[in-house]
Amino acid sequence: MKTLVLSVNDLSDIVRYLGLNRLMDEAIDRLASAFRDYDPGKHAVPVRDGFTYDAPKEGLLEWMPAMTLGERVTMKIVGYHPTNPDCTQLPTIISSSLSFDTSTGHLTGIVDGTFMTALRTGAASAVASRVLSDPQSSTLGIIGCGAQALTQLHAISRIFELKEVLLYDIDPSVSGDFCARTAVLGLQHVRMRPAPLQHVIRSADILCTATSIAVGSGPVFQDCDLKTHIHVNAVGSDFPGKTELPVSLLARSFVCPDFRAQAMKEGECQQLVPEALGPDLAELVKNTETYRSKRRVSTVFDSTGWALEDHVISGMLFEYADSLKCGTMVELESIGSDPRNPYGFAVDVEAYGKLPLKRMIRH
Amino acid sequence: MKTLVLSVNDLSDIVRYLGLNRLMDEAIDRLASAFRDYDPGKHAVPVRDGFTYDAPKEGLLEWMPAMTLGERVTMKIVGYHPTNPDCTQLPTIISSSLSFDTSTGHLTGIVDGTFMTALRTGAASAVASRVLSDPQSSTLGIIGCGAQALTQLHAISRIFELKEVLLYDIDPSVSGDFCARTAVLGLQHVRMRPAPLQHVIRSADILCTATSIAVGSGPVFQDCDLKTHIHVNAVGSDFPGKTELPVSLLARSFVCPDFRAQAMKEGECQQLVPEALGPDLAELVKNTETYRSKRRVSTVFDSTGWALEDHVISGMLFEYADSLKCGTMVELESIGSDPRNPYGFAVDVEAYGKLPLKRMIRH
Repeated sequence: MKTLVLSVNDLSDIVRYLGLNRLMDEAIDRLASAFRDYDPGKHAVPVRDGFTYDAPKEGLLEWMPAMTLGERVTMKIVGYHPTNPDCTQLPTIISSSLSFDTSTGHLTGIVDGTFMTALRTGAASAVASRVLSDPQSSTLGIIGCGAQALTQLHAISRIFELKEVLLYDIDPSVSGDFCARTAVLGLQHVRMRPAPLQHVIRSADILCTATSIAVGSGPVFQDCDLKTHIHVNAVGSDFPGKTELPVSLLARSFVCPDFRAQAMKEGECQQLVPEALGPDLAELVKNTETYRSKRRVSTVFDSTGWALEDHVISGMLFEYADSLKCGTMVELESIGSDPRNPYGFAVDVEAYGKLPLKRMIRH
Repeated sequence: MKTLVLSVNDLSDIVRYLGLNRLMDEAIDRLASAFRDYDPGKHAVPVRDGFTYDAPKEGLLEWMPAMTLGERVTMKIVGYHPTNPDCTQLPTIISSSLSFDTSTGHLTGIVDGTFMTALRTGAASAVASRVLSDPQSSTLGIIGCGAQALTQLHAISRIFELKEVLLYDIDPSVSGDFCARTAVLGLQHVRMRPAPLQHVIRSADILCTATSIAVGSGPVFQDCDLKTHIHVNAVGSDFPGKTELPVSLLARSFVCPDFRAQAMKEGECQQLVPEALGPDLAELVKNTETYRSKRRVSTVFDSTGWALEDHVISGMLFEYADSLKCGTMVELESIGSDPRNPYGFAVDVEAYGKLPLKRMIRH
């Protein structure tokens, strides 16, 4: 029984084969389709849990399981360490994802979850925005220009004819560098530039917040002079006490969480009473027509990150790995010929004593 | 940033290098030491959680995280599919384990958890038995002769001078095959044979139950004519409603759970009121002298499987892999040179378009 291990080179091969745009388009389509078909009787997606700590640095390691009953389980494990980019040159979010066959418990595959997290978070915002934003939206405002912002822009640019992107980050060098990172997206026709925070929020048709604001330090902007039809994709709020949006904006907006129970614990919805919440993302997509009128008013997509999204997107990556025959099949599990012998995989160990280790060189 | 992937061949190299006996002895020592040093302020070990299902077959996939604060997180994922041995020639328990660095969230290593689960479950029983069993114990009874039984025997044989091992399984072919599986343990001097259930339980100084009894179908034996000093390692009970021991035996015994909160949810302790429980395993090991008198009375170790054990034993395996330089370092996480660019690992994708896939051959 082997496990498909996708290295970063394999993942890069898949991305190169498809191209970033086709990959994002397909991620958006697959998420929309999964939300439309979502059935709590067929899928199990618990609220995520995790370890939080302040030592050695502020951080968080979470596990995000999801299951399609009778088929497979995805387990994404994701770290959030906001000092990473400046201290270690690593992304704030680092993640890996595993896939299991529920008929036997066999680990079928391992793939990076870092890229996938950024991709699906962007795609989920595109799905929500397609329902809730004015279709003529042409100005995107971005607050917080880190890794997640790039896929937010990319995903939104696949659905809306953007003319202008206005960038704000508390670290001006980060918003300054952002344009260079967008070079691969083919958005040369879009005006893109850093701007003062007030200008960003006043000009935006669609606003994206994707910051590492500290617990209790929000909101990241004040609620004034926003466009009446503004749609906000609030991406950064994903931890108890961590919120980005002003309460007054939430209170007057039509607010859709990706996953209600989780959003009330970790998302912008922490700031609202349960009765003030709109439908969740699955309902929004199932009944798009019902919510079409909301395009004219202020709306918020509270994106905490739903494990079902990872389940769908990791499934897509494994499918492409399979059809493109990339990745390495590794025998990881210690399964011998006798299922009742846990030492079977290393039989004859004692019989032969301490064998010379032919394979004992790290490849 | 690379991840150490230990294949089954690498794990086999470690086992061959150390030999099964040294490995088991070290597992017992490391667990005892970890229990002695266990400090809830330095370790976080939540009660495990998981998915249970009846389709396509009865099964369970659980996640068992554990953390040493400021150091590392272990995430073991374990499947329990009791029809595996007969239907698919796979073990009932299949598992994998991951290790993460809590300073960045980086996945440092992946190793099989199947062997480790059997090893640590045996070792934990040895640690508990060393405190609670008569040191002169020479007859071991085993009820349920599957994969877990082999490491129970192995571990107990490292602490006690066994003269006789009596085996019972509801499937006589399974207890019959057991002796052949013990050939690697160097126990040729021990009389080992299948026996009627009544004979097993009446003769045992130490009894091990490691069955896949169905929920609600326990106990696996009736409480009569046990030795007054009997010690039972109850290994099979690990799920709500699944228990192996008669209530009357539990009620008159000194009962130690490995992990109190979990044992009350999933272990034999489900059958007891909280006040009837003895100390947990860590307390037992910290204060061995206090519990020495219990060797003369009936005692039960309620082993549900504590994630701290996996944390310790996987740590040991990674240490040996490191010192023996075995395993493969794989770049799994999609981390480019710019921590704020999630597409960085595949840069120039769009610039080059759909490149021919040089690496797109499954190795």
